[in-house]
Amino acid sequence: MTREAGEKALAQCRERIDELDRRLVNLLNERSRIVEEIGRIKGECGMRIYEPRREEEVLRNIEEHNGGPMGHDAARRIFERIIDEMRTLQKLRMEDSRDGDKS
Amino acid sequence: MTREAGEKALAQCRERIDELDRRLVNLLNERSRIVEEIGRIKGECGMRIYEPRREEEVLRNIEEHNGGPMGHDAARRIFERIIDEMRTLQKLRMEDSRDGDKS
Repeated sequence: MTREAGEKALAQCRERIDELDRRLVNLLNERSRIVEEIGRIKGECGMRIYEPRREEEVLRNIEEHNGGPMGHDAARRIFERIIDEMRTLQKLRMEDSRDGDKS
Repeated sequence: MTREAGEKALAQCRERIDELDRRLVNLLNERSRIVEEIGRIKGECGMRIYEPRREEEVLRNIEEHNGGPMGHDAARRIFERIIDEMRTLQKLRMEDSRDGDKS
């Protein structure tokens, strides 16, 4: 492949990645909204936020549906980051619900 | 909300998350395939794998299309992890292309 043809193919790949990333962002925000909802439910019912068993369940679901080429370890590390970020969001919503009770 | 109603609402939320995660895994694998393709192109054309300017472009695209409730910092950290995992995959494919040249 010539350098010029390579540059052109690269530009096309990058457009596809940018479009795909926008879909990923939308899905992650959809996931965030459900996690916020869970935070509110847990806050209202006085449930615990950190549930290691549920986290293992989430990671098992990922692994079972990962057909590659992304490796299982890579998928696990990415979702551990997602879960971690969303736990923070859930904690905030849980506190909101409790504050709501007090007022 | 009673504890029982809370448990039921929680179970429904979790089903929605599991379904959403499967879609995320599929999109991440689609992204991986494009990244592998980029690796092959770069390998054939002798281009560099690490391009900080392109990475900034990817992160800017994320930030511009992030309508929340996921925060910008959280989105950035999640995508930095995704980029990092996929760089490893790209490196492998790039080496494959070069090895292919030698044989």
